[in-house]
Amino acid sequence: MNRNKEGMNYAPKGVVNKVVEQGEFVFAATALDHGHIYGMCNGLMEAGADLKWVYDGDHKKCEAFKQQYPHVRIADSLDDILQDKEVKLVAAAAIPSKRCELGILVMEHGKDYFTDKTPFTTLEQLELAKKAVLETGKKYMVYYSERLHVESAVFAGQLIDQGAIGRVLQVTGFGPHRLQAENRPEWFFQKEQYGGILCDIGSHQIEQFLYYTGCQEAKVLHSKVANYYAKEYPELEDYGDATLVGDNGATQFFRVDWHTPNGLSTWGDGRLFLIGTNERLKLESMWMLQGMKRGTMFI
Amino acid sequence: MNRNKEGMNYAPKGVVNKVVEQGEFVFAATALDHGHIYGMCNGLMEAGADLKWVYDGDHKKCEAFKQQYPHVRIADSLDDILQDKEVKLVAAAAIPSKRCELGILVMEHGKDYFTDKTPFTTLEQLELAKKAVLETGKKYMVYYSERLHVESAVFAGQLIDQGAIGRVLQVTGFGPHRLQAENRPEWFFQKEQYGGILCDIGSHQIEQFLYYTGCQEAKVLHSKVANYYAKEYPELEDYGDATLVGDNGATQFFRVDWHTPNGLSTWGDGRLFLIGTNERLKLESMWMLQGMKRGTMFI
Repeated sequence: MNRNKEGMNYAPKGVVNKVVEQGEFVFAATALDHGHIYGMCNGLMEAGADLKWVYDGDHKKCEAFKQQYPHVRIADSLDDILQDKEVKLVAAAAIPSKRCELGILVMEHGKDYFTDKTPFTTLEQLELAKKAVLETGKKYMVYYSERLHVESAVFAGQLIDQGAIGRVLQVTGFGPHRLQAENRPEWFFQKEQYGGILCDIGSHQIEQFLYYTGCQEAKVLHSKVANYYAKEYPELEDYGDATLVGDNGATQFFRVDWHTPNGLSTWGDGRLFLIGTNERLKLESMWMLQGMKRGTMFI
Repeated sequence: MNRNKEGMNYAPKGVVNKVVEQGEFVFAATALDHGHIYGMCNGLMEAGADLKWVYDGDHKKCEAFKQQYPHVRIADSLDDILQDKEVKLVAAAAIPSKRCELGILVMEHGKDYFTDKTPFTTLEQLELAKKAVLETGKKYMVYYSERLHVESAVFAGQLIDQGAIGRVLQVTGFGPHRLQAENRPEWFFQKEQYGGILCDIGSHQIEQFLYYTGCQEAKVLHSKVANYYAKEYPELEDYGDATLVGDNGATQFFRVDWHTPNGLSTWGDGRLFLIGTNERLKLESMWMLQGMKRGTMFI
Protein backbone atom coordinates (compact mmCIF):
# COMPACT_ATOMS: atom_id res chain seq x y z
CA MET A 1 0.00 0.00 0.00
CA ASN A 2 1.27 3.43 -0.88
CA ARG A 3 0.34 5.45 2.17
CA ASN A 4 0.85 8.71 0.31
CA LYS A 5 -2.08 7.74 -1.83
CA GLU A 6 -4.38 7.33 1.17
CA GLY A 7 -5.09 10.36 3.27
CA MET A 8 -7.16 8.36 5.73
CA ASN A 9 -4.20 6.18 6.74
CA TYR A 10 -1.53 8.83 6.51
CA ALA A 11 0.03 9.05 9.99
CA PRO A 12 2.65 11.78 10.05
CA LYS A 13 5.63 11.45 12.32
CA GLY A 14 7.21 14.63 13.52
CA VAL A 15 10.21 15.64 15.57
CA VAL A 16 10.26 14.39 19.16
CA ASN A 17 9.91 17.48 21.30
CA LYS A 18 8.79 16.44 24.77
CA VAL A 19 6.92 18.96 26.85
CA VAL A 20 6.15 16.55 29.72
CA GLU A 21 8.25 14.02 31.63
CA GLN A 22 7.63 10.29 31.36
CA GLY A 23 4.52 9.25 33.28
CA GLU A 24 3.37 12.83 33.65
CA PHE A 25 0.69 12.71 30.95
CA VAL A 26 -0.98 9.36 30.35
CA PHE A 27 -3.51 8.89 27.56
CA ALA A 28 -5.60 6.19 25.93
CA ALA A 29 -6.86 5.59 22.41
CA THR A 30 -10.32 4.38 21.47
CA ALA A 31 -12.72 4.34 18.52
CA LEU A 32 -10.29 3.34 15.79
CA ASP A 33 -12.79 3.99 13.00
CA HIS A 34 -10.54 6.37 11.08
CA GLY A 35 -6.83 5.91 10.41
CA HIS A 36 -6.11 9.43 11.67
CA ILE A 37 -5.92 7.93 15.18
CA TYR A 38 -2.36 6.88 14.37
CA GLY A 39 -1.25 10.41 13.50
CA MET A 40 -2.96 11.69 16.65
CA CYS A 41 -1.13 9.18 18.85
CA ASN A 42 2.20 9.88 17.12
CA GLY A 43 1.81 13.59 17.84
CA LEU A 44 0.93 13.06 21.49
CA MET A 45 3.81 10.67 22.06
CA GLU A 46 6.30 12.94 20.31
CA ALA A 47 5.27 15.58 22.84
CA GLY A 48 6.09 13.14 25.66
CA ALA A 49 2.66 11.66 26.44
CA ASP A 50 2.40 8.00 27.45
CA LEU A 51 -0.01 5.77 25.54
CA LYS A 52 -1.37 3.29 28.07
CA TRP A 53 -4.58 1.79 26.71
CA VAL A 54 -6.39 1.07 23.51
CA TYR A 55 -9.98 -0.07 23.18
CA ASP A 56 -12.25 -0.74 20.22
CA GLY A 57 -15.25 -3.06 19.88
CA ASP A 58 -13.47 -4.61 16.89
CA HIS A 59 -10.63 -6.64 18.38
CA LYS A 60 -8.84 -6.86 15.03
CA LYS A 61 -8.42 -3.11 15.03
CA CYS A 62 -6.90 -3.28 18.51
CA GLU A 63 -4.46 -5.96 17.39
CA ALA A 64 -3.37 -3.91 14.40
CA PHE A 65 -2.97 -0.90 16.67
CA LYS A 66 -0.83 -2.92 19.10
CA GLN A 67 1.43 -3.96 16.25
CA GLN A 68 2.19 -0.30 15.72
CA TYR A 69 2.57 0.49 19.43
CA PRO A 70 3.64 -2.81 21.11
CA HIS A 71 3.69 -1.37 24.64
CA VAL A 72 -0.03 -0.47 24.59
CA ARG A 73 -2.49 -2.53 26.70
CA ILE A 74 -5.70 -3.66 25.03
CA ALA A 75 -8.58 -2.84 27.39
CA ASP A 76 -11.56 -5.17 27.76
CA SER A 77 -14.02 -2.29 27.66
CA LEU A 78 -14.15 1.46 27.27
CA ASP A 79 -15.01 1.60 30.94
CA ASP A 80 -11.56 0.26 31.87
CA ILE A 81 -10.15 3.41 30.32
CA LEU A 82 -12.77 5.78 31.72
CA GLN A 83 -12.27 4.45 35.26
CA ASP A 84 -8.48 4.68 35.13
CA LYS A 85 -7.60 7.77 37.15
CA GLU A 86 -4.12 7.89 35.62
CA VAL A 87 -5.55 8.57 32.15
CA LYS A 88 -5.71 12.33 31.52
CA LEU A 89 -6.84 12.31 27.91
CA VAL A 90 -8.69 10.02 25.52
CA ALA A 91 -7.86 10.22 21.83
CA ALA A 92 -10.50 8.90 19.43
CA ALA A 93 -11.40 8.75 15.76
CA ALA A 94 -15.00 7.53 15.95
CA ILE A 95 -17.58 7.59 13.19
CA PRO A 96 -18.21 11.36 12.89
CA SER A 97 -21.83 11.26 14.07
CA LYS A 98 -20.66 9.45 17.25
CA ARG A 99 -17.79 11.74 18.14
CA CYS A 100 -19.74 14.13 20.33
CA GLU A 101 -21.45 11.43 22.39
CA LEU A 102 -18.10 9.80 23.10
CA GLY A 103 -16.48 13.12 23.93
CA ILE A 104 -19.13 14.02 26.49
CA LEU A 105 -18.75 10.61 28.13
CA VAL A 106 -14.98 11.09 28.30
CA MET A 107 -15.27 14.58 29.81
CA GLU A 108 -17.85 13.41 32.33
CA HIS A 109 -15.21 10.96 33.54
CA GLY A 110 -12.82 13.84 34.20
CA LYS A 111 -10.63 13.41 31.14
CA ASP A 112 -9.85 15.69 28.22
CA TYR A 113 -11.00 14.57 24.79
CA PHE A 114 -8.99 14.69 21.58
CA THR A 115 -11.03 13.78 18.53
CA ASP A 116 -10.27 13.56 14.87
CA LYS A 117 -12.02 16.16 12.76
CA THR A 118 -14.85 16.76 12.08
CA PRO A 119 -15.78 17.17 15.75
CA PHE A 120 -19.57 17.29 15.10
CA THR A 121 -22.11 16.47 12.46
CA THR A 122 -25.00 18.55 13.85
CA LEU A 123 -25.41 21.89 15.59
CA GLU A 124 -27.22 20.13 18.43
CA GLN A 125 -24.07 18.13 19.17
CA LEU A 126 -22.07 21.36 19.26
CA GLU A 127 -24.43 22.81 21.88
CA LEU A 128 -24.29 19.62 23.97
CA ALA A 129 -20.50 19.63 23.89
CA LYS A 130 -20.31 23.32 24.86
CA LYS A 131 -22.53 22.62 27.84
CA ALA A 132 -20.46 19.60 28.88
CA VAL A 133 -17.22 21.61 28.62
CA LEU A 134 -18.70 24.24 30.97
CA GLU A 135 -19.97 21.62 33.42
CA THR A 136 -16.87 19.42 33.52
CA GLY A 137 -14.11 21.99 32.94
CA LYS A 138 -12.54 19.53 30.52
CA LYS A 139 -11.30 20.10 26.98
CA TYR A 140 -12.88 18.99 23.69
CA MET A 141 -9.98 19.25 21.26
CA VAL A 142 -9.87 18.51 17.54
CA TYR A 143 -7.14 17.05 15.37
CA TYR A 144 -7.13 19.34 12.35
CA SER A 145 -4.21 17.53 10.79
CA GLU A 146 -3.99 19.75 7.74
CA ARG A 147 -2.81 22.64 9.88
CA LEU A 148 -1.53 21.02 13.08
CA HIS A 149 0.53 18.30 11.48
CA VAL A 150 1.99 20.12 8.46
CA GLU A 151 5.18 22.07 9.05
CA SER A 152 4.54 24.74 6.41
CA ALA A 153 1.04 25.33 7.79
CA VAL A 154 2.40 25.94 11.29
CA PHE A 155 5.12 28.19 9.88
CA ALA A 156 2.52 30.16 7.93
CA GLY A 157 0.74 30.87 11.22
CA GLN A 158 3.97 32.11 12.77
CA LEU A 159 4.70 34.37 9.80
CA ILE A 160 1.21 35.84 9.93
CA ASP A 161 1.57 36.45 13.67
CA GLN A 162 4.75 38.37 12.92
CA GLY A 163 2.86 40.54 10.42
CA ALA A 164 4.75 39.21 7.39
CA ILE A 165 1.81 39.64 5.02
CA GLY A 166 -0.15 42.30 6.89
CA ARG A 167 -3.77 41.81 7.83
CA VAL A 168 -5.17 38.66 6.22
CA LEU A 169 -8.05 39.65 3.92
CA GLN A 170 -8.87 36.46 2.08
CA VAL A 171 -8.16 32.77 2.27
CA THR A 172 -8.78 30.34 -0.58
CA GLY A 173 -8.28 26.67 0.12
CA PHE A 174 -8.42 23.56 -2.03
CA GLY A 175 -8.83 20.22 -0.28
CA PRO A 176 -9.00 17.47 -2.89
CA HIS A 177 -8.92 13.89 -1.64
CA ARG A 178 -8.60 10.47 -3.20
CA LEU A 179 -11.75 8.39 -2.88
CA GLN A 180 -10.44 4.81 -2.99
CA ALA A 181 -13.95 3.66 -2.29
CA GLU A 182 -12.96 0.01 -2.02
CA ASN A 183 -10.97 0.71 1.18
CA ARG A 184 -13.67 2.77 2.86
CA PRO A 185 -16.00 1.55 5.61
CA GLU A 186 -19.73 1.60 5.06
CA TRP A 187 -20.33 4.62 7.31
CA PHE A 188 -18.22 6.71 4.98
CA PHE A 189 -21.06 6.59 2.43
CA GLN A 190 -23.94 7.32 4.84
CA LYS A 191 -24.58 11.06 5.08
CA GLU A 192 -26.06 10.87 8.56
CA GLN A 193 -22.84 9.25 9.76
CA TYR A 194 -20.11 11.19 7.93
CA GLY A 195 -22.01 14.46 8.06
CA GLY A 196 -21.60 15.62 4.47
CA ILE A 197 -18.45 16.72 2.65
CA LEU A 198 -18.46 20.30 3.98
CA CYS A 199 -18.59 18.95 7.52
CA ASP A 200 -16.15 16.11 7.04
CA ILE A 201 -13.25 17.53 5.05
CA GLY A 202 -14.55 21.12 4.74
CA SER A 203 -14.13 21.62 8.49
CA HIS A 204 -10.34 21.52 7.97
CA GLN A 205 -10.66 24.48 5.66
CA ILE A 206 -12.85 26.51 7.98
CA GLU A 207 -10.50 25.91 10.90
CA GLN A 208 -7.60 27.20 8.79
CA PHE A 209 -9.57 30.29 7.79
CA LEU A 210 -10.49 31.14 11.39
CA TYR A 211 -6.95 30.53 12.59
CA TYR A 212 -5.07 32.47 9.95
CA THR A 213 -7.42 35.46 9.95
CA GLY A 214 -7.80 35.57 13.72
CA CYS A 215 -11.60 35.45 13.47
CA GLN A 216 -13.61 34.17 16.40
CA GLU A 217 -16.73 33.65 14.33
CA ALA A 218 -17.75 33.50 10.72
CA LYS A 219 -20.93 33.28 8.68
CA VAL A 220 -21.44 30.88 5.81
CA LEU A 221 -22.63 33.10 2.96
CA HIS A 222 -23.07 30.38 0.38
CA SER A 223 -22.30 26.71 -0.02
CA LYS A 224 -22.97 23.93 -2.46
CA VAL A 225 -22.46 20.19 -2.73
CA ALA A 226 -22.78 17.71 -5.58
CA ASN A 227 -22.57 14.09 -6.47
CA TYR A 228 -21.05 14.45 -9.92
CA TYR A 229 -19.83 10.97 -10.64
CA ALA A 230 -20.04 8.64 -7.61
CA LYS A 231 -23.54 7.58 -8.61
CA GLU A 232 -23.13 4.16 -7.01
CA TYR A 233 -22.91 5.96 -3.65
CA PRO A 234 -25.96 8.23 -3.73
CA GLU A 235 -25.31 9.75 -0.29
CA LEU A 236 -21.67 10.57 -0.96
CA GLU A 237 -21.12 14.20 -1.78
CA ASP A 238 -18.10 14.10 -4.05
CA TYR A 239 -17.82 17.88 -4.43
CA GLY A 240 -18.48 20.81 -2.12
CA ASP A 241 -17.54 24.43 -1.75
CA ALA A 242 -18.43 27.37 0.46
CA THR A 243 -17.70 31.02 0.96
CA LEU A 244 -17.61 32.67 4.39
CA VAL A 245 -17.12 36.08 5.94
CA GLY A 246 -15.42 36.40 9.31
CA ASP A 247 -16.21 38.78 12.14
CA ASN A 248 -13.30 41.04 11.12
CA GLY A 249 -14.33 41.26 7.48
CA ALA A 250 -11.92 38.66 6.11
CA THR A 251 -13.46 36.24 3.63
CA GLN A 252 -12.90 32.66 2.60
CA PHE A 253 -13.62 30.38 -0.28
CA PHE A 254 -12.83 26.70 -0.18
CA ARG A 255 -13.57 23.69 -2.27
CA VAL A 256 -13.20 20.06 -1.34
CA ASP A 257 -13.76 16.91 -3.33
CA TRP A 258 -13.21 13.18 -3.58
CA HIS A 259 -11.77 13.30 -7.04
CA THR A 260 -7.98 13.19 -7.06
CA PRO A 261 -6.84 11.83 -10.43
CA ASN A 262 -5.38 8.33 -10.43
CA GLY A 263 -2.02 9.51 -11.67
CA LEU A 264 -1.24 11.78 -8.74
CA SER A 265 1.30 10.36 -6.30
CA THR A 266 -0.44 11.91 -3.29
CA TRP A 267 -4.05 11.74 -2.17
CA GLY A 268 -4.62 15.35 -3.08
CA ASP A 269 -2.88 18.45 -4.27
CA GLY A 270 -4.02 20.64 -1.39
CA ARG A 271 -3.37 24.34 -1.65
CA LEU A 272 -3.88 27.38 0.47
CA PHE A 273 -3.73 30.97 -0.73
CA LEU A 274 -3.68 33.81 1.77
CA ILE A 275 -4.08 37.41 0.67
CA GLY A 276 -2.76 39.97 3.14
CA THR A 277 -2.81 43.74 2.95
CA ASN A 278 0.93 43.72 2.18
CA GLU A 279 1.86 40.36 0.73
CA ARG A 280 0.43 37.03 -0.32
CA LEU A 281 1.26 33.61 0.98
CA LYS A 282 0.77 30.38 -0.93
CA LEU A 283 1.04 26.92 0.51
CA GLU A 284 1.11 24.37 -2.24
CA SER A 285 1.06 20.63 -2.07
CA MET A 286 0.51 20.82 1.65
CA TRP A 287 0.57 17.11 1.76
CA MET A 288 3.60 15.02 1.08
CA LEU A 289 4.48 14.49 -2.54
CA GLN A 290 6.82 11.66 -3.41
CA GLY A 291 10.38 12.88 -3.34
CA MET A 292 9.38 16.29 -2.05
CA LYS A 293 9.32 17.83 1.36
CA ARG A 294 5.86 17.95 2.84
CA GLY A 295 4.50 21.38 2.19
CA THR A 296 6.04 24.02 0.01
CA MET A 297 5.64 27.67 0.80
CA PHE A 298 5.87 30.72 -1.43
CA ILE A 299 5.64 34.32 -0.37
CA MET B 1 7.96 52.08 -17.44
CA ASN B 2 7.92 48.36 -16.85
CA ARG B 3 5.03 47.22 -18.99
CA ASN B 4 4.87 43.88 -17.22
CA LYS B 5 3.86 45.76 -14.11
CA GLU B 6 0.90 47.43 -15.84
CA GLY B 7 -1.86 45.23 -17.10
CA MET B 8 -3.71 48.15 -18.60
CA ASN B 9 -0.88 48.95 -21.01
CA TYR B 10 0.22 45.43 -21.70
CA ALA B 11 -0.14 44.92 -25.45
CA PRO B 12 0.74 41.36 -26.36
CA LYS B 13 2.29 40.63 -29.73
CA GLY B 14 1.67 37.20 -31.13
CA VAL B 15 2.72 35.26 -34.18
CA VAL B 16 1.75 36.72 -37.55
CA ASN B 17 -0.78 34.32 -39.00
CA LYS B 18 -2.71 36.08 -41.73
CA VAL B 19 -6.18 34.82 -42.50
CA VAL B 20 -7.01 37.60 -44.98
CA GLU B 21 -5.12 39.20 -47.87
CA GLN B 22 -3.89 42.79 -47.75
CA GLY B 23 -6.76 45.23 -48.23
CA GLU B 24 -9.35 42.55 -47.68
CA PHE B 25 -10.26 43.51 -44.11
CA VAL B 26 -9.90 47.16 -43.19
CA PHE B 27 -10.53 48.36 -39.66
CA ALA B 28 -10.33 51.50 -37.55
CA ALA B 29 -9.56 52.22 -33.92
CA THR B 30 -11.38 54.67 -31.70
CA ALA B 31 -12.00 55.42 -28.01
CA LEU B 32 -8.45 55.03 -26.75
CA ASP B 33 -9.52 55.20 -23.10
CA HIS B 34 -7.90 51.91 -22.12
CA GLY B 35 -4.46 50.67 -23.16
CA HIS B 36 -5.91 47.34 -24.26
CA ILE B 37 -6.66 48.98 -27.64
CA TYR B 38 -3.03 48.33 -28.56
CA GLY B 39 -3.28 44.60 -27.89
CA MET B 40 -6.54 44.50 -29.83
CA CYS B 41 -4.97 46.23 -32.87
CA ASN B 42 -1.88 43.99 -32.69
CA GLY B 43 -4.06 40.91 -32.78
CA LEU B 44 -6.12 42.13 -35.72
CA MET B 45 -3.06 43.12 -37.73
CA GLU B 46 -1.29 39.83 -37.01
CA ALA B 47 -4.34 38.15 -38.56
CA GLY B 48 -3.88 40.28 -41.68
CA ALA B 49 -6.30 43.15 -41.05
CA ASP B 50 -5.37 46.67 -42.20
CA LEU B 51 -5.53 49.48 -39.67
CA LYS B 52 -6.68 52.53 -41.60
CA TRP B 53 -7.99 55.12 -39.14
CA VAL B 54 -7.75 56.20 -35.57
CA TYR B 55 -9.99 58.71 -33.81
CA ASP B 56 -10.23 59.98 -30.25
CA GLY B 57 -11.48 63.30 -28.88
CA ASP B 58 -8.11 63.65 -27.16
CA HIS B 59 -5.65 64.41 -29.93
CA LYS B 60 -2.67 63.51 -27.73
CA LYS B 61 -3.91 59.95 -27.52
CA CYS B 62 -4.14 59.82 -31.31
CA GLU B 63 -0.59 61.09 -31.65
CA ALA B 64 0.72 58.48 -29.22
CA PHE B 65 -1.22 55.83 -31.13
CA LYS B 66 0.28 57.00 -34.43
CA GLN B 67 3.76 56.70 -32.98
CA GLN B 68 3.03 53.02 -32.47
CA TYR B 69 1.38 52.55 -35.87
CA PRO B 70 2.91 55.22 -38.16
CA HIS B 71 0.81 54.28 -41.18
CA VAL B 72 -2.50 55.03 -39.45
CA ARG B 73 -4.50 58.12 -40.46
CA ILE B 74 -5.85 60.33 -37.71
CA ALA B 75 -9.52 61.05 -38.47
CA ASP B 76 -11.07 64.45 -37.75
CA SER B 77 -14.19 62.87 -36.31
CA LEU B 78 -15.70 59.51 -35.53
CA ASP B 79 -18.04 60.13 -38.43
CA ASP B 80 -15.14 59.97 -40.90
CA ILE B 81 -14.67 56.37 -39.79
CA LEU B 82 -18.35 55.49 -39.68
CA GLN B 83 -18.94 56.86 -43.21
CA ASP B 84 -15.95 55.04 -44.71
CA LYS B 85 -17.45 52.10 -46.58
CA GLU B 86 -14.06 50.37 -46.71
CA VAL B 87 -14.00 49.98 -42.90
CA LYS B 88 -15.42 46.61 -41.91
CA LEU B 89 -14.77 46.73 -38.17
CA VAL B 90 -14.23 49.33 -35.47
CA ALA B 91 -12.06 48.42 -32.49
CA ALA B 92 -12.57 50.48 -29.34
CA ALA B 93 -11.63 50.60 -25.67
CA ALA B 94 -14.05 53.24 -24.42
CA ILE B 95 -14.94 54.00 -20.81
CA PRO B 96 -16.90 50.83 -19.89
CA SER B 97 -20.24 52.55 -19.38
CA LYS B 98 -19.95 54.03 -22.91
CA ARG B 99 -19.00 50.86 -24.72
CA CYS B 100 -22.50 49.76 -25.60
CA GLU B 101 -23.61 53.12 -26.96
CA LEU B 102 -20.57 53.24 -29.22
CA GLY B 103 -21.05 49.66 -30.34
CA ILE B 104 -24.64 50.22 -31.39
CA LEU B 105 -23.60 53.30 -33.36
CA VAL B 106 -20.87 51.30 -35.11
CA MET B 107 -23.23 48.44 -35.96
CA GLU B 108 -25.88 50.83 -37.23
CA HIS B 109 -23.27 52.04 -39.71
CA GLY B 110 -22.89 48.53 -41.06
CA LYS B 111 -19.64 47.66 -39.31
CA ASP B 112 -18.72 45.00 -36.79
CA TYR B 113 -17.66 46.14 -33.35
CA PHE B 114 -14.72 44.84 -31.34
CA THR B 115 -14.66 46.22 -27.81
CA ASP B 116 -12.36 45.73 -24.90
CA LYS B 117 -13.93 43.90 -21.98
CA THR B 118 -16.14 44.47 -20.07
CA PRO B 119 -18.64 44.87 -22.92
CA PHE B 120 -21.42 46.28 -20.70
CA THR B 121 -21.95 47.82 -17.29
CA THR B 122 -25.74 47.29 -17.09
CA LEU B 123 -28.23 44.64 -18.13
CA GLU B 124 -30.17 47.31 -20.06
CA GLN B 125 -27.13 47.84 -22.28
CA LEU B 126 -26.94 44.10 -22.91
CA GLU B 127 -30.56 44.07 -24.09
CA LEU B 128 -30.02 47.10 -26.34
CA ALA B 129 -26.97 45.48 -27.90
CA LYS B 130 -28.79 42.16 -28.49
CA LYS B 131 -31.56 44.07 -30.24
CA ALA B 132 -29.08 46.02 -32.39
CA VAL B 133 -27.26 42.81 -33.36
CA LEU B 134 -30.55 41.30 -34.56
CA GLU B 135 -31.51 44.46 -36.45
CA THR B 136 -28.16 45.13 -38.11
CA GLY B 137 -26.82 41.59 -38.53
CA LYS B 138 -23.48 42.91 -37.30
CA LYS B 139 -21.19 41.50 -34.61
CA TYR B 140 -20.54 42.82 -31.10
CA MET B 141 -17.29 41.11 -30.15
CA VAL B 142 -15.29 41.37 -26.96
CA TYR B 143 -11.55 41.31 -26.35
CA TYR B 144 -11.20 38.92 -23.42
CA SER B 145 -7.43 39.16 -23.49
CA GLU B 146 -6.88 36.74 -20.63
CA ARG B 147 -8.11 33.87 -22.76
CA LEU B 148 -7.81 35.11 -26.33
CA HIS B 149 -4.31 36.51 -26.08
CA VAL B 150 -2.62 33.94 -23.82
CA GLU B 151 -1.15 30.91 -25.55
CA SER B 152 -1.64 28.51 -22.65
CA ALA B 153 -5.27 29.60 -22.30
CA VAL B 154 -5.95 28.84 -25.96
CA PHE B 155 -4.12 25.51 -25.66
CA ALA B 156 -6.21 24.63 -22.58
CA GLY B 157 -9.35 25.08 -24.66
CA GLN B 158 -7.97 22.77 -27.34
CA LEU B 159 -7.06 20.12 -24.76
CA ILE B 160 -10.51 20.29 -23.22
CA ASP B 161 -12.12 19.97 -26.67
CA GLN B 162 -10.07 16.81 -27.18
CA GLY B 163 -11.40 15.40 -23.89
CA ALA B 164 -8.02 15.48 -22.14
CA ILE B 165 -9.50 16.10 -18.69
CA GLY B 166 -13.00 14.72 -19.23
CA ARG B 167 -16.09 16.80 -18.55
CA VAL B 168 -15.16 20.06 -16.83
CA LEU B 169 -16.85 20.15 -13.42
CA GLN B 170 -15.37 23.17 -11.72
CA VAL B 171 -13.32 26.23 -12.59
CA THR B 172 -11.54 28.37 -10.01
CA GLY B 173 -9.90 31.54 -11.24
CA PHE B 174 -7.75 34.17 -9.56
CA GLY B 175 -7.45 37.53 -11.31
CA PRO B 176 -5.28 39.81 -9.17
CA HIS B 177 -4.25 43.14 -10.69
CA ARG B 178 -1.88 45.93 -9.79
CA LEU B 179 -3.64 49.17 -8.92
CA GLN B 180 -1.04 51.84 -9.75
CA ALA B 181 -3.66 54.42 -8.96
CA GLU B 182 -1.46 57.32 -10.01
CA ASN B 183 -1.55 56.18 -13.66
CA ARG B 184 -5.31 55.64 -13.76
CA PRO B 185 -7.83 58.01 -15.34
CA GLU B 186 -10.59 59.47 -13.22
CA TRP B 187 -13.31 57.22 -14.66
CA PHE B 188 -11.50 54.23 -13.28
CA PHE B 189 -12.60 55.26 -9.78
CA GLN B 190 -16.25 56.05 -10.60
CA LYS B 191 -18.43 52.99 -10.16
CA GLU B 192 -21.05 54.14 -12.67
CA GLN B 193 -18.33 54.37 -15.29
CA TYR B 194 -16.18 51.30 -14.66
CA GLY B 195 -19.13 49.13 -13.60
CA GLY B 196 -17.72 47.55 -10.43
CA ILE B 197 -14.87 45.06 -10.09
CA LEU B 198 -16.98 41.97 -10.91
CA CYS B 199 -18.07 43.60 -14.14
CA ASP B 200 -14.72 45.09 -15.07
CA ILE B 201 -12.15 42.36 -14.39
CA GLY B 202 -14.55 39.67 -13.20
CA SER B 203 -16.06 39.41 -16.67
CA HIS B 204 -12.78 37.86 -17.88
CA GLN B 205 -13.27 35.09 -15.38
CA ILE B 206 -16.89 34.42 -16.28
CA GLU B 207 -16.03 34.29 -19.97
CA GLN B 208 -13.36 31.68 -19.22
CA PHE B 209 -15.79 29.61 -17.18
CA LEU B 210 -18.45 29.60 -19.90
CA TYR B 211 -15.90 28.81 -22.57
CA TYR B 212 -14.07 25.97 -20.83
CA THR B 213 -17.20 24.27 -19.51
CA GLY B 214 -19.19 24.73 -22.71
CA CYS B 215 -22.04 26.40 -20.84
CA GLN B 216 -24.38 28.70 -22.71
CA GLU B 217 -25.75 30.28 -19.56
CA ALA B 218 -24.93 30.48 -15.89
CA LYS B 219 -26.49 31.81 -12.72
CA VAL B 220 -24.63 33.89 -10.16
CA LEU B 221 -25.26 32.08 -6.87
CA HIS B 222 -23.33 34.45 -4.63
CA SER B 223 -21.01 37.40 -5.00
CA LYS B 224 -19.30 39.93 -2.80
CA VAL B 225 -17.20 43.06 -3.17
CA ALA B 226 -15.18 45.13 -0.73
CA ASN B 227 -13.08 48.23 -0.41
CA TYR B 228 -10.50 46.91 2.06
CA TYR B 229 -7.77 49.47 1.81
CA ALA B 230 -8.26 51.93 -1.04
CA LYS B 231 -10.17 54.27 1.26
CA GLU B 232 -9.11 57.36 -0.69
CA TYR B 233 -11.14 55.99 -3.62
CA PRO B 234 -14.49 55.20 -1.98
CA GLU B 235 -16.11 53.93 -5.19
CA LEU B 236 -13.28 51.58 -6.07
CA GLU B 237 -14.01 47.98 -5.22
CA ASP B 238 -10.58 46.58 -4.51
CA TYR B 239 -11.80 43.01 -3.91
CA GLY B 240 -14.56 40.89 -5.37
CA ASP B 241 -15.51 37.27 -5.74
CA ALA B 242 -18.40 35.23 -7.04
CA THR B 243 -19.58 31.68 -7.45
CA LEU B 244 -21.71 30.51 -10.39
CA VAL B 245 -23.43 27.38 -11.64
CA GLY B 246 -23.68 26.74 -15.35
CA ASP B 247 -26.56 25.21 -17.30
CA ASN B 248 -24.75 21.85 -17.42
CA GLY B 249 -24.07 21.71 -13.68
CA ALA B 250 -20.45 22.89 -13.78
CA THR B 251 -19.59 25.46 -11.13
CA GLN B 252 -17.19 28.35 -10.83
CA PHE B 253 -15.54 30.41 -8.17
CA PHE B 254 -13.40 33.40 -8.99
CA ARG B 255 -11.80 36.21 -7.09
CA VAL B 256 -10.39 39.41 -8.46
CA ASP B 257 -8.64 42.27 -6.76
CA TRP B 258 -6.51 45.38 -7.17
CA HIS B 259 -3.91 44.33 -4.71
CA THR B 260 -0.85 42.82 -6.33
CA PRO B 261 2.10 43.20 -3.93
CA ASN B 262 4.74 45.75 -4.92
CA GLY B 263 7.45 43.15 -5.14
CA LEU B 264 5.85 41.08 -7.88
CA SER B 265 7.40 41.53 -11.32
CA THR B 266 4.06 41.18 -13.08
CA TRP B 267 0.76 42.96 -12.56
CA GLY B 268 -0.81 39.88 -11.12
CA ASP B 269 -0.22 36.20 -10.50
CA GLY B 270 -3.32 35.02 -12.36
CA ARG B 271 -4.23 31.38 -12.02
CA LEU B 272 -6.84 29.07 -13.39
CA PHE B 273 -7.73 25.64 -12.02
CA LEU B 274 -9.96 23.33 -13.99
CA ILE B 275 -11.34 20.14 -12.47
CA GLY B 276 -12.44 17.55 -14.96
CA THR B 277 -13.98 14.14 -14.40
CA ASN B 278 -10.67 12.51 -15.35
CA GLU B 279 -7.88 14.98 -14.79
CA ARG B 280 -7.16 18.47 -13.56
CA LEU B 281 -5.62 21.34 -15.44
CA LYS B 282 -3.82 24.25 -13.85
CA LEU B 283 -2.76 27.39 -15.61
CA GLU B 284 -0.43 29.40 -13.45
CA SER B 285 1.04 32.80 -13.97
CA MET B 286 -1.13 33.21 -17.01
CA TRP B 287 0.42 36.55 -17.58
CA MET B 288 4.00 37.08 -18.53
CA LEU B 289 6.51 36.86 -15.72
CA GLN B 290 9.93 38.33 -16.24
CA GLY B 291 12.24 35.76 -17.72
CA MET B 292 9.45 33.22 -18.09
CA LYS B 293 7.26 32.19 -20.94
CA ARG B 294 3.81 33.70 -20.75
CA GLY B 295 1.58 31.12 -19.19
CA THR B 296 2.65 27.86 -17.66
CA MET B 297 0.45 24.83 -17.81
CA PHE B 298 0.33 21.77 -15.62
CA ILE B 299 -1.84 18.72 -16.09
